[in-house]
Amino acid sequence: MRTAAVLGLGLIGGSLARDLARLRVRVLGWDLDAGSREAARLAGAIEPLGHDLERLSEADLVVLAVPVRSAPGLLARLAPLLRSDALVTDVGSTKSSITRAAHAAGLGSAFVGSHPLAGDHRSGWSASREGLFRGRRVFLTPSGETPPHTLEAVQELWGSVGAITETVSPEAHDREMAWVSHLPQATSSALGLALADAGVPSSRLGPGGRDVTRLAGSSADLWADILSDNSDHVVAALRAVASRIASLTSAIERGELHELRRILADAAEWVSETGSPATQPEPADEAEVRRTRDVG
Amino acid sequence: MRTAAVLGLGLIGGSLARDLARLRVRVLGWDLDAGSREAARLAGAIEPLGHDLERLSEADLVVLAVPVRSAPGLLARLAPLLRSDALVTDVGSTKSSITRAAHAAGLGSAFVGSHPLAGDHRSGWSASREGLFRGRRVFLTPSGETPPHTLEAVQELWGSVGAITETVSPEAHDREMAWVSHLPQATSSALGLALADAGVPSSRLGPGGRDVTRLAGSSADLWADILSDNSDHVVAALRAVASRIASLTSAIERGELHELRRILADAAEWVSETGSPATQPEPADEAEVRRTRDVG
Repeated sequence: MRTAAVLGLGLIGGSLARDLARLRVRVLGWDLDAGSREAARLAGAIEPLGHDLERLSEADLVVLAVPVRSAPGLLARLAPLLRSDALVTDVGSTKSSITRAAHAAGLGSAFVGSHPLAGDHRSGWSASREGLFRGRRVFLTPSGETPPHTLEAVQELWGSVGAITETVSPEAHDREMAWVSHLPQATSSALGLALADAGVPSSRLGPGGRDVTRLAGSSADLWADILSDNSDHVVAALRAVASRIASLTSAIERGELHELRRILADAAEWVSETGSPATQPEPADEAEVRRTRDVG
Repeated sequence: MRTAAVLGLGLIGGSLARDLARLRVRVLGWDLDAGSREAARLAGAIEPLGHDLERLSEADLVVLAVPVRSAPGLLARLAPLLRSDALVTDVGSTKSSITRAAHAAGLGSAFVGSHPLAGDHRSGWSASREGLFRGRRVFLTPSGETPPHTLEAVQELWGSVGAITETVSPEAHDREMAWVSHLPQATSSALGLALADAGVPSSRLGPGGRDVTRLAGSSADLWADILSDNSDHVVAALRAVASRIASLTSAIERGELHELRRILADAAEWVSETGSPATQPEPADEAEVRRTRDVG
Protein backbone atom coordinates (compact mmCIF):
# COMPACT_ATOMS: atom_id res chain seq x y z
CA MET A 1 0.00 0.00 0.00
CA ARG A 2 1.47 3.30 -1.09
CA THR A 3 -1.44 5.71 -0.88
CA ALA A 4 -4.26 5.59 1.66
CA ALA A 5 -7.22 7.93 1.91
CA VAL A 6 -8.70 8.63 5.35
CA LEU A 7 -12.11 10.26 5.26
CA GLY A 8 -12.93 11.78 8.64
CA LEU A 9 -10.09 12.99 10.86
CA GLY A 10 -11.53 12.53 14.35
CA LEU A 11 -10.08 10.42 17.16
CA ILE A 12 -9.95 7.23 15.07
CA GLY A 13 -9.36 8.59 11.56
CA GLY A 14 -6.88 11.20 12.80
CA SER A 15 -4.90 8.66 14.82
CA LEU A 16 -4.79 6.23 11.89
CA ALA A 17 -3.60 9.03 9.56
CA ARG A 18 -0.83 9.94 12.02
CA ASP A 19 0.34 6.32 12.31
CA LEU A 20 0.28 5.71 8.55
CA ALA A 21 2.17 8.94 7.86
CA ARG A 22 4.83 7.85 10.35
CA LEU A 23 5.10 4.58 8.39
CA ARG A 24 5.76 6.71 5.24
CA VAL A 25 2.44 5.83 3.65
CA ARG A 26 1.10 8.77 1.62
CA VAL A 27 -2.17 9.76 3.31
CA LEU A 28 -4.88 11.72 1.52
CA GLY A 29 -7.11 13.15 4.23
CA TRP A 30 -10.53 14.74 4.30
CA ASP A 31 -12.83 16.03 7.02
CA LEU A 32 -16.06 18.01 6.86
CA ASP A 33 -14.46 20.43 9.30
CA ALA A 34 -11.90 22.68 7.57
CA GLY A 35 -10.10 23.33 10.88
CA SER A 36 -9.45 19.61 11.46
CA ARG A 37 -8.27 19.21 7.86
CA GLU A 38 -5.84 22.10 8.22
CA ALA A 39 -4.60 20.92 11.63
CA ALA A 40 -3.95 17.44 10.23
CA ARG A 41 -2.04 18.95 7.28
CA LEU A 42 0.07 21.12 9.60
CA ALA A 43 0.86 18.04 11.72
CA GLY A 44 2.27 16.40 8.61
CA ALA A 45 -0.30 13.61 8.78
CA ILE A 46 -2.15 14.21 5.50
CA GLU A 47 -2.32 15.83 2.09
CA PRO A 48 -5.78 17.40 2.13
CA LEU A 49 -8.46 16.18 -0.27
CA GLY A 50 -10.98 18.69 -1.60
CA HIS A 51 -14.71 18.25 -0.97
CA ASP A 52 -15.05 16.83 -4.50
CA LEU A 53 -12.92 13.85 -3.30
CA GLU A 54 -11.67 13.67 -6.89
CA ARG A 55 -8.14 12.52 -6.00
CA LEU A 56 -9.57 9.41 -4.30
CA SER A 57 -8.66 7.65 -7.57
CA GLU A 58 -5.04 7.83 -6.36
CA ALA A 59 -5.77 5.69 -3.30
CA ASP A 60 -4.98 1.99 -2.93
CA LEU A 61 -7.05 1.85 0.24
CA VAL A 62 -9.84 4.08 1.49
CA VAL A 63 -10.78 4.25 5.18
CA LEU A 64 -14.16 5.74 6.11
CA ALA A 65 -13.86 7.23 9.59
CA VAL A 66 -17.07 9.25 9.69
CA PRO A 67 -20.10 8.80 11.99
CA VAL A 68 -22.09 5.58 11.52
CA ARG A 69 -25.08 7.45 10.10
CA SER A 70 -23.00 9.31 7.47
CA ALA A 71 -20.95 6.34 6.28
CA PRO A 72 -23.48 4.63 3.95
CA GLY A 73 -24.16 7.87 2.03
CA LEU A 74 -20.46 8.66 1.71
CA LEU A 75 -19.78 5.10 0.53
CA ALA A 76 -22.34 5.45 -2.26
CA ARG A 77 -20.84 8.79 -3.25
CA LEU A 78 -17.25 7.62 -3.40
CA ALA A 79 -17.88 4.26 -5.12
CA PRO A 80 -17.73 5.72 -8.68
CA LEU A 81 -14.52 7.64 -7.87
CA LEU A 82 -12.41 4.61 -6.88
CA ARG A 83 -9.85 2.72 -8.88
CA SER A 84 -11.14 -0.75 -9.78
CA ASP A 85 -8.52 -2.43 -7.56
CA ALA A 86 -8.94 -0.10 -4.59
CA LEU A 87 -10.01 -1.57 -1.25
CA VAL A 88 -12.34 0.07 1.23
CA THR A 89 -12.87 -0.28 4.96
CA ASP A 90 -14.53 1.76 7.68
CA VAL A 91 -14.12 2.11 11.46
CA GLY A 92 -17.75 2.35 12.60
CA SER A 93 -19.07 0.78 15.78
CA THR A 94 -21.81 -1.15 13.95
CA LYS A 95 -21.14 -3.39 10.99
CA SER A 96 -24.37 -4.83 9.55
CA SER A 97 -25.77 -1.66 7.97
CA ILE A 98 -22.47 -0.47 6.47
CA THR A 99 -21.83 -3.94 5.00
CA ARG A 100 -25.27 -3.87 3.37
CA ALA A 101 -24.53 -0.36 2.05
CA ALA A 102 -21.22 -1.53 0.55
CA HIS A 103 -22.97 -4.30 -1.31
CA ALA A 104 -25.67 -1.93 -2.51
CA ALA A 105 -22.94 0.41 -3.82
CA GLY A 106 -21.37 -2.42 -5.81
CA LEU A 107 -18.38 -2.66 -3.46
CA GLY A 108 -19.12 -6.18 -2.22
CA SER A 109 -15.68 -7.53 -3.11
CA ALA A 110 -13.72 -4.32 -2.34
CA PHE A 111 -15.11 -3.71 1.12
CA VAL A 112 -14.54 -5.28 4.51
CA GLY A 113 -15.69 -3.53 7.68
CA SER A 114 -13.36 -2.76 10.59
CA HIS A 115 -14.15 -1.78 14.14
CA PRO A 116 -11.18 -0.77 16.26
CA LEU A 117 -11.91 -0.93 20.01
CA ALA A 118 -9.97 2.24 20.59
CA GLY A 119 -12.63 4.88 21.18
CA ASP A 120 -13.11 6.65 24.46
CA HIS A 121 -15.13 9.60 25.71
CA ARG A 122 -13.01 12.06 23.71
CA SER A 123 -13.49 12.84 20.05
CA GLY A 124 -12.19 14.99 17.21
CA TRP A 125 -8.78 15.61 15.67
CA SER A 126 -7.52 17.18 18.90
CA ALA A 127 -8.01 13.82 20.67
CA SER A 128 -6.12 11.86 17.99
CA ARG A 129 -2.62 10.59 18.67
CA GLU A 130 0.10 8.30 17.39
CA GLY A 131 0.06 4.75 18.73
CA LEU A 132 -3.65 4.73 19.59
CA PHE A 133 -4.14 1.25 18.11
CA ARG A 134 -1.09 -0.44 19.61
CA GLY A 135 -2.25 -3.63 21.33
CA ARG A 136 -5.91 -2.77 20.72
CA ARG A 137 -8.40 -5.24 19.29
CA VAL A 138 -9.88 -4.53 15.85
CA PHE A 139 -12.85 -6.55 14.60
CA LEU A 140 -12.91 -7.31 10.88
CA THR A 141 -16.32 -8.31 9.54
CA PRO A 142 -16.11 -10.03 6.15
CA SER A 143 -19.35 -11.12 4.53
CA GLY A 144 -19.88 -14.21 2.37
CA GLU A 145 -18.81 -12.15 -0.66
CA THR A 146 -15.49 -10.85 0.72
CA PRO A 147 -12.50 -12.28 -1.21
CA PRO A 148 -9.51 -13.44 0.90
CA HIS A 149 -7.15 -10.77 -0.50
CA THR A 150 -9.47 -7.97 0.62
CA LEU A 151 -9.56 -9.33 4.15
CA GLU A 152 -5.77 -9.87 4.15
CA ALA A 153 -5.05 -6.31 2.99
CA VAL A 154 -7.16 -4.85 5.78
CA GLN A 155 -5.56 -7.22 8.30
CA GLU A 156 -2.19 -5.88 7.17
CA LEU A 157 -3.37 -2.28 7.56
CA TRP A 158 -4.28 -2.81 11.21
CA GLY A 159 -1.30 -5.02 11.90
CA SER A 160 0.99 -2.24 10.64
CA VAL A 161 -0.28 0.11 13.37
CA GLY A 162 0.08 -2.53 16.10
CA ALA A 163 -3.53 -3.70 16.44
CA ILE A 164 -4.70 -7.27 16.97
CA THR A 165 -7.36 -8.23 14.46
CA GLU A 166 -10.22 -10.63 15.04
CA THR A 167 -12.64 -11.85 12.39
CA VAL A 168 -16.37 -12.18 13.00
CA SER A 169 -19.53 -11.85 10.90
CA PRO A 170 -21.19 -8.41 10.78
CA GLU A 171 -24.28 -9.79 12.53
CA ALA A 172 -22.41 -11.51 15.37
CA HIS A 173 -20.29 -8.39 15.78
CA ASP A 174 -23.32 -6.15 16.25
CA ARG A 175 -24.90 -8.55 18.72
CA GLU A 176 -21.72 -8.71 20.81
CA MET A 177 -21.13 -4.94 20.66
CA ALA A 178 -24.64 -4.32 21.99
CA TRP A 179 -23.47 -5.96 25.20
CA VAL A 180 -19.80 -5.10 25.56
CA SER A 181 -19.87 -1.53 24.27
CA HIS A 182 -23.31 -0.02 23.59
CA LEU A 183 -24.85 -1.22 26.85
CA PRO A 184 -22.09 0.21 29.11
CA GLN A 185 -22.40 3.48 27.17
CA ALA A 186 -26.18 3.69 27.58
CA THR A 187 -26.01 2.64 31.25
CA SER A 188 -23.44 5.33 31.98
CA SER A 189 -25.69 7.90 30.31
CA ALA A 190 -28.75 6.73 32.28
CA LEU A 191 -26.81 7.12 35.53
CA GLY A 192 -25.62 10.59 34.53
CA LEU A 193 -29.19 11.60 33.66
CA ALA A 194 -30.56 10.33 37.00
CA LEU A 195 -27.93 12.35 38.86
CA ALA A 196 -28.65 15.42 36.72
CA ASP A 197 -32.40 15.02 37.44
CA ALA A 198 -31.63 14.90 41.18
CA GLY A 199 -29.62 18.12 40.95
CA VAL A 200 -26.36 16.41 41.92
CA PRO A 201 -23.45 18.04 40.06
CA SER A 202 -20.85 15.73 38.53
CA SER A 203 -18.17 17.58 40.50
CA ARG A 204 -19.51 15.94 43.69
CA LEU A 205 -18.60 12.43 42.56
CA GLY A 206 -15.56 10.56 43.88
CA PRO A 207 -13.11 8.68 41.64
CA GLY A 208 -15.33 5.57 41.46
CA GLY A 209 -18.43 7.50 40.46
CA ARG A 210 -16.41 9.34 37.84
CA ASP A 211 -15.34 6.03 36.32
CA VAL A 212 -18.95 4.90 35.99
CA THR A 213 -20.16 8.18 34.46
CA ARG A 214 -17.13 8.95 32.24
CA LEU A 215 -18.69 7.42 29.11
CA ALA A 216 -21.79 9.58 29.56
CA GLY A 217 -19.59 12.48 28.45
CA SER A 218 -19.13 10.94 24.99
CA SER A 219 -20.45 12.57 21.84
CA ALA A 220 -24.25 12.46 21.93
CA ASP A 221 -24.66 12.60 18.14
CA LEU A 222 -22.19 9.79 17.54
CA TRP A 223 -23.83 7.54 20.12
CA ALA A 224 -27.42 8.32 19.13
CA ASP A 225 -26.44 7.03 15.68
CA ILE A 226 -24.83 3.86 17.02
CA LEU A 227 -27.61 2.98 19.46
CA SER A 228 -30.27 3.57 16.80
CA ASP A 229 -28.39 1.59 14.17
CA ASN A 230 -28.17 -1.41 16.54
CA SER A 231 -31.52 -0.89 18.23
CA ASP A 232 -32.85 -4.47 18.50
CA HIS A 233 -29.80 -5.82 20.31
CA VAL A 234 -29.38 -2.68 22.43
CA VAL A 235 -32.98 -2.72 23.62
CA ALA A 236 -32.64 -6.36 24.72
CA ALA A 237 -29.44 -5.55 26.60
CA LEU A 238 -30.96 -2.49 28.31
CA ARG A 239 -33.91 -4.61 29.46
CA ALA A 240 -31.42 -7.02 31.06
CA VAL A 241 -29.82 -4.20 33.05
CA ALA A 242 -33.24 -2.89 34.09
CA SER A 243 -34.06 -6.36 35.39
CA ARG A 244 -30.87 -6.48 37.49
CA ILE A 245 -31.45 -2.98 38.85
CA ALA A 246 -34.88 -4.23 39.91
CA SER A 247 -33.43 -7.28 41.67
CA LEU A 248 -30.86 -5.17 43.52
CA THR A 249 -33.53 -2.65 44.51
CA SER A 250 -35.75 -5.40 45.82
CA ALA A 251 -33.00 -7.03 47.92
CA ILE A 252 -32.03 -3.65 49.43
CA GLU A 253 -35.62 -2.61 50.10
CA ARG A 254 -36.51 -5.91 51.80
CA GLY A 255 -33.32 -5.88 53.87
CA GLU A 256 -32.22 -9.22 52.42
CA LEU A 257 -28.57 -8.82 53.39
CA HIS A 258 -27.62 -12.40 52.57
CA GLU A 259 -29.19 -12.21 49.11
CA LEU A 260 -27.63 -8.80 48.49
CA ARG A 261 -24.18 -10.13 49.34
CA ARG A 262 -24.69 -13.07 47.02
CA ILE A 263 -25.76 -10.83 44.12
CA LEU A 264 -22.87 -8.39 44.60
CA ALA A 265 -20.43 -11.29 44.92
CA ASP A 266 -21.68 -12.65 41.56
CA ALA A 267 -20.91 -9.27 39.99
CA ALA A 268 -17.47 -9.09 41.62
CA GLU A 269 -16.66 -12.61 40.47
CA TRP A 270 -17.64 -11.70 36.91
CA VAL A 271 -15.24 -8.73 36.98
CA SER A 272 -12.38 -10.84 38.29
CA GLU A 273 -12.74 -13.59 35.69
CA THR A 274 -9.95 -12.68 33.35
CA GLY A 275 -9.81 -15.91 31.38
CA SER A 276 -8.70 -15.60 27.78
CA PRO A 277 -11.53 -15.57 25.20
CA ALA A 278 -10.39 -19.00 23.98
CA THR A 279 -11.25 -20.62 27.31
CA GLN A 280 -14.54 -18.78 27.79
CA PRO A 281 -17.76 -20.43 26.67
CA GLU A 282 -19.38 -18.55 23.80
CA PRO A 283 -22.89 -17.20 24.33
CA ALA A 284 -25.16 -20.07 23.28
CA ASP A 285 -26.66 -18.24 20.31
CA GLU A 286 -23.22 -17.45 18.94
CA ALA A 287 -21.92 -21.00 18.97
CA GLU A 288 -22.47 -21.23 15.22
CA VAL A 289 -20.23 -18.27 14.51
CA ARG A 290 -16.70 -19.16 13.60
CA ARG A 291 -14.47 -16.63 15.34
CA THR A 292 -10.84 -16.56 14.26
CA ARG A 293 -8.21 -14.66 16.13
CA ASP A 294 -5.65 -13.25 13.71
CA VAL A 295 -2.58 -11.65 15.11
CA GLY A 296 -1.65 -9.09 12.45
CA MET B 1 -1.71 13.94 69.22
CA ARG B 2 1.04 11.56 70.22
CA THR B 3 -0.61 8.14 70.05
CA ALA B 4 -3.32 7.07 67.62
CA ALA B 5 -5.05 3.71 67.44
CA VAL B 6 -6.22 2.46 64.05
CA LEU B 7 -8.66 -0.45 64.22
CA GLY B 8 -8.90 -2.17 60.86
CA LEU B 9 -5.89 -2.10 58.53
CA GLY B 10 -7.51 -2.27 55.10
CA LEU B 11 -7.18 0.22 52.27
CA ILE B 12 -8.32 3.18 54.38
CA GLY B 13 -7.07 2.22 57.85
CA GLY B 14 -3.80 0.86 56.50
CA SER B 15 -3.11 3.99 54.45
CA LEU B 16 -3.90 6.24 57.41
CA ALA B 17 -1.58 4.21 59.67
CA ARG B 18 1.22 4.52 57.10
CA ASP B 19 0.77 8.30 56.83
CA LEU B 20 0.60 8.83 60.59
CA ALA B 21 3.68 6.69 61.17
CA ARG B 22 5.54 8.79 58.58
CA LEU B 23 4.49 11.88 60.60
CA ARG B 24 6.09 10.25 63.68
CA VAL B 25 2.80 9.63 65.41
CA ARG B 26 2.86 6.43 67.43
CA VAL B 27 0.24 4.15 65.86
CA LEU B 28 -1.34 1.24 67.70
CA GLY B 29 -2.86 -0.99 65.05
CA TRP B 30 -5.32 -3.85 65.07
CA ASP B 31 -6.97 -5.99 62.42
CA LEU B 32 -9.09 -9.13 62.68
CA ASP B 33 -6.71 -10.67 60.14
CA ALA B 34 -3.40 -11.64 61.75
CA GLY B 35 -1.62 -11.50 58.38
CA SER B 36 -2.58 -7.86 57.83
CA ARG B 37 -1.55 -6.99 61.39
CA GLU B 38 1.86 -8.59 60.90
CA ALA B 39 2.38 -7.02 57.46
CA ALA B 40 1.57 -3.59 58.91
CA ARG B 41 4.03 -4.16 61.74
CA LEU B 42 6.76 -5.25 59.34
CA ALA B 43 6.13 -2.14 57.23
CA GLY B 44 6.84 -0.07 60.33
CA ALA B 45 3.34 1.43 60.28
CA ILE B 46 2.04 0.12 63.61
CA GLU B 47 2.68 -1.40 67.00
CA PRO B 48 0.19 -4.29 67.08
CA LEU B 49 -2.68 -4.29 69.55
CA GLY B 50 -3.87 -7.61 70.94
CA HIS B 51 -7.46 -8.76 70.46
CA ASP B 52 -8.24 -7.59 73.98
CA LEU B 53 -7.56 -4.02 72.76
CA GLU B 54 -6.38 -3.31 76.30
CA ARG B 55 -3.70 -0.80 75.32
CA LEU B 56 -6.35 1.40 73.71
CA SER B 57 -6.13 3.40 76.95
CA GLU B 58 -2.81 4.76 75.63
CA ALA B 59 -4.47 6.37 72.62
CA ASP B 60 -5.32 10.07 72.28
CA LEU B 61 -7.36 9.33 69.18
CA VAL B 62 -9.03 6.13 68.00
CA VAL B 63 -9.94 5.58 64.36
CA LEU B 64 -12.42 2.81 63.50
CA ALA B 65 -11.67 1.57 60.00
CA VAL B 66 -13.75 -1.60 59.98
CA PRO B 67 -16.78 -2.45 57.80
CA VAL B 68 -19.91 -0.34 58.37
CA ARG B 69 -21.79 -3.26 59.89
CA SER B 70 -19.03 -4.09 62.41
CA ALA B 71 -18.36 -0.54 63.55
CA PRO B 72 -21.28 -0.03 66.01
CA GLY B 73 -20.48 -3.25 67.91
CA LEU B 74 -16.78 -2.44 68.09
CA LEU B 75 -17.59 1.07 69.28
CA ALA B 76 -19.67 -0.28 72.17
CA ARG B 77 -16.89 -2.70 73.06
CA LEU B 78 -14.10 -0.15 73.11
CA ALA B 79 -16.00 2.65 74.88
CA PRO B 80 -15.12 1.40 78.41
CA LEU B 81 -11.45 0.98 77.47
CA LEU B 82 -10.83 4.61 76.44
CA ARG B 83 -9.22 7.41 78.40
CA SER B 84 -11.80 10.02 79.35
CA ASP B 85 -10.21 12.65 77.08
CA ALA B 86 -9.72 10.33 74.09
CA LEU B 87 -11.43 11.21 70.82
CA VAL B 88 -12.96 8.74 68.39
CA THR B 89 -13.73 8.83 64.70
CA ASP B 90 -14.48 6.28 62.00
CA VAL B 91 -14.10 6.12 58.23
CA GLY B 92 -17.34 4.40 57.19
CA SER B 93 -19.32 5.27 54.08
CA THR B 94 -22.54 5.89 56.02
CA LYS B 95 -22.76 8.24 58.98
CA SER B 96 -26.23 8.19 60.56
CA SER B 97 -26.15 4.74 62.16
CA ILE B 98 -22.59 5.03 63.52
CA THR B 99 -23.39 8.46 65.01
CA ARG B 100 -26.42 6.97 66.76
CA ALA B 101 -24.25 4.09 68.00
CA ALA B 102 -21.67 6.52 69.41
CA HIS B 103 -24.34 8.35 71.37
CA ALA B 104 -25.76 5.07 72.62
CA ALA B 105 -22.26 4.05 73.80
CA GLY B 106 -21.94 7.30 75.78
CA LEU B 107 -19.40 8.72 73.31
CA GLY B 108 -21.59 11.64 72.15
CA SER B 109 -18.98 14.27 72.93
CA ALA B 110 -15.91 12.17 72.06
CA PHE B 111 -17.05 11.04 68.63
CA VAL B 112 -17.32 12.69 65.27
CA GLY B 113 -17.74 10.60 62.12
CA SER B 114 -15.41 10.86 59.12
CA HIS B 115 -15.84 9.62 55.60
CA PRO B 116 -12.80 9.94 53.33
CA LEU B 117 -13.68 9.76 49.61
CA ALA B 118 -10.61 7.69 48.93
CA GLY B 119 -11.94 4.18 48.40
CA ASP B 120 -11.76 2.36 45.13
CA HIS B 121 -12.44 -1.17 43.93
CA ARG B 122 -9.41 -2.54 45.80
CA SER B 123 -9.38 -3.40 49.48
CA GLY B 124 -7.20 -4.83 52.23
CA TRP B 125 -3.79 -3.95 53.64
CA SER B 126 -2.12 -4.87 50.35
CA ALA B 127 -4.01 -2.02 48.66
CA SER B 128 -3.01 0.55 51.30
CA ARG B 129 -0.40 3.16 50.49
CA GLU B 130 1.16 6.37 51.72
CA GLY B 131 -0.37 9.58 50.43
CA LEU B 132 -3.80 8.06 49.69
CA PHE B 133 -5.63 11.03 51.24
CA ARG B 134 -3.62 13.83 49.66
CA GLY B 135 -6.06 16.24 48.02
CA ARG B 136 -9.01 13.94 48.73
CA ARG B 137 -12.25 15.14 50.27
CA VAL B 138 -13.17 13.89 53.75
CA PHE B 139 -16.64 14.49 55.13
CA LEU B 140 -16.89 15.18 58.87
CA THR B 141 -20.34 14.71 60.34
CA PRO B 142 -20.76 16.36 63.75
CA SER B 143 -24.10 16.01 65.49
CA GLY B 144 -25.79 18.60 67.67
CA GLU B 145 -23.84 17.18 70.66
CA THR B 146 -20.35 17.36 69.13
CA PRO B 147 -18.17 19.91 71.00
CA PRO B 148 -16.01 22.21 68.81
CA HIS B 149 -12.72 20.78 70.10
CA THR B 150 -13.69 17.26 69.02
CA LEU B 151 -14.45 18.45 65.50
CA GLU B 152 -11.25 20.50 65.38
CA ALA B 153 -9.05 17.57 66.48
CA VAL B 154 -10.47 15.35 63.73
CA GLN B 155 -10.10 18.16 61.19
CA GLU B 156 -6.43 18.35 62.20
CA LEU B 157 -6.03 14.60 61.80
CA TRP B 158 -7.20 14.68 58.18
CA GLY B 159 -5.44 17.93 57.43
CA SER B 160 -2.16 16.36 58.57
CA VAL B 161 -2.44 13.68 55.86
CA GLY B 162 -3.29 16.21 53.15
CA ALA B 163 -7.07 15.78 52.94
CA ILE B 164 -9.64 18.55 52.52
CA THR B 165 -12.38 18.30 55.12
CA GLU B 166 -15.97 19.30 54.65
CA THR B 167 -18.59 19.43 57.42
CA VAL B 168 -22.14 18.18 56.92
CA SER B 169 -24.80 16.60 59.13
CA PRO B 170 -24.87 12.76 59.26
CA GLU B 171 -28.32 12.74 57.64
CA ALA B 172 -27.42 15.07 54.75
CA HIS B 173 -24.22 13.09 54.24
CA ASP B 174 -26.07 9.80 53.84
CA ARG B 175 -28.60 11.33 51.46
CA GLU B 176 -25.85 12.78 49.27
CA MET B 177 -23.75 9.59 49.35
CA ALA B 178 -26.71 7.57 48.14
CA TRP B 179 -26.46 9.54 44.90
CA VAL B 180 -22.77 10.27 44.40
CA SER B 181 -21.32 6.98 45.66
CA HIS B 182 -23.80 4.20 46.45
CA LEU B 183 -25.81 4.63 43.25
CA PRO B 184 -22.79 4.45 40.89
CA GLN B 185 -21.66 1.36 42.82
CA ALA B 186 -25.02 -0.40 42.53
CA THR B 187 -25.43 0.60 38.87
CA SER B 188 -21.99 -0.78 38.02
CA SER B 189 -22.93 -4.05 39.75
CA ALA B 190 -26.27 -4.25 37.91
CA LEU B 191 -24.45 -3.83 34.59
CA GLY B 192 -21.91 -6.50 35.50
CA LEU B 193 -24.70 -8.88 36.50
CA ALA B 194 -26.59 -8.33 33.23
CA LEU B 195 -23.42 -9.08 31.27
CA ALA B 196 -22.75 -12.17 33.40
CA ASP B 197 -26.34 -13.35 32.82
CA ALA B 198 -25.83 -12.97 29.07
CA GLY B 199 -22.65 -15.06 29.19
CA VAL B 200 -20.42 -12.15 28.12
CA PRO B 201 -17.04 -12.42 29.88
CA SER B 202 -15.57 -9.21 31.32
CA SER B 203 -12.43 -9.80 29.24
CA ARG B 204 -14.45 -8.91 26.11
CA LEU B 205 -15.04 -5.31 27.22
CA GLY B 206 -13.09 -2.38 25.82
CA PRO B 207 -11.57 0.37 27.98
CA GLY B 208 -14.86 2.29 28.25
CA GLY B 209 -16.85 -0.73 29.35
CA ARG B 210 -14.16 -1.55 31.89
CA ASP B 211 -14.49 1.91 33.38
CA VAL B 212 -18.24 1.45 33.87
CA THR B 213 -17.92 -2.02 35.40
CA ARG B 214 -14.78 -1.46 37.51
CA LEU B 215 -16.72 -0.70 40.71
CA ALA B 216 -18.66 -3.96 40.35
CA GLY B 217 -15.41 -5.68 41.35
CA SER B 218 -15.50 -4.05 44.81
CA SER B 219 -15.92 -6.08 47.99
CA ALA B 220 -19.43 -7.56 48.02
CA ASP B 221 -19.61 -7.82 51.82
CA LEU B 222 -18.51 -4.24 52.37
CA TRP B 223 -21.02 -2.90 49.86
CA ALA B 224 -23.92 -5.09 50.96
CA ASP B 225 -23.44 -3.47 54.40
CA ILE B 226 -23.34 0.06 53.04
CA LEU B 227 -26.32 -0.30 50.69
CA SER B 228 -28.40 -1.93 53.45
CA ASP B 229 -27.42 0.67 56.02
CA ASN B 230 -28.55 3.48 53.69
CA SER B 231 -31.44 1.62 52.10
CA ASP B 232 -34.12 4.33 51.91
CA HIS B 233 -31.99 6.80 50.01
CA VAL B 234 -30.36 4.12 47.85
CA VAL B 235 -33.71 2.64 46.79
CA ALA B 236 -34.94 6.09 45.72
CA ALA B 237 -31.77 6.66 43.71
CA LEU B 238 -31.94 3.24 42.02
CA ARG B 239 -35.54 3.95 41.00
CA ALA B 240 -34.34 7.17 39.34
CA VAL B 241 -31.78 5.24 37.25
CA ALA B 242 -34.40 2.63 36.33
CA SER B 243 -36.61 5.44 35.09
CA ARG B 244 -33.85 6.85 32.88
CA ILE B 245 -32.98 3.42 31.50
CA ALA B 246 -36.66 3.14 30.58
CA SER B 247 -36.65 6.50 28.79
CA LEU B 248 -33.51 5.62 26.83
CA THR B 249 -34.92 2.20 25.92
CA SER B 250 -38.13 3.79 24.71
CA ALA B 251 -36.36 6.38 22.53
CA ILE B 252 -34.15 3.69 20.95
CA GLU B 253 -37.02 1.26 20.42
CA ARG B 254 -39.24 3.88 18.78
CA GLY B 255 -36.42 5.15 16.57
CA GLU B 256 -36.73 8.66 18.02
CA LEU B 257 -33.26 9.79 16.92
CA HIS B 258 -33.85 13.45 17.73
CA GLU B 259 -35.09 12.67 21.24
CA LEU B 260 -32.24 10.20 21.77
CA ARG B 261 -29.67 12.84 20.80
CA ARG B 262 -31.27 15.32 23.16
CA ILE B 263 -31.22 12.87 26.10
CA LEU B 264 -27.61 11.84 25.50
CA ALA B 265 -26.60 15.49 25.11
CA ASP B 266 -28.18 16.24 28.52
CA ALA B 267 -26.03 13.49 30.04
CA ALA B 268 -22.87 14.73 28.30
CA GLU B 269 -23.57 18.29 29.44
CA TRP B 270 -23.94 17.09 33.02
CA VAL B 271 -20.54 15.36 32.85
CA SER B 272 -18.84 18.45 31.43
CA GLU B 273 -20.22 20.83 34.09
CA THR B 274 -17.18 21.13 36.30
CA GLY B 275 -18.30 24.15 38.31
CA SER B 276 -16.98 24.32 41.88
CA PRO B 277 -19.42 23.19 44.56
CA ALA B 278 -19.70 26.80 45.75
CA THR B 279 -21.30 27.90 42.48
CA GLN B 280 -23.56 24.85 42.13
CA PRO B 281 -27.15 25.04 43.35
CA GLU B 282 -27.77 22.64 46.24
CA PRO B 283 -30.41 19.97 45.78
CA ALA B 284 -33.66 21.64 46.86
CA ASP B 285 -34.21 19.38 49.87
CA GLU B 286 -30.73 20.08 51.18
CA ALA B 287 -31.02 23.86 51.10
CA GLU B 288 -31.54 23.88 54.86
CA VAL B 289 -28.26 22.11 55.53
CA ARG B 290 -25.39 24.36 56.37
CA ARG B 291 -22.35 23.00 54.56
CA THR B 292 -19.01 24.43 55.53
CA ARG B 293 -15.88 23.79 53.56
CA ASP B 294 -12.88 23.60 55.86
CA VAL B 295 -9.46 23.39 54.33
CA GLY B 296 -7.46 21.49 56.93
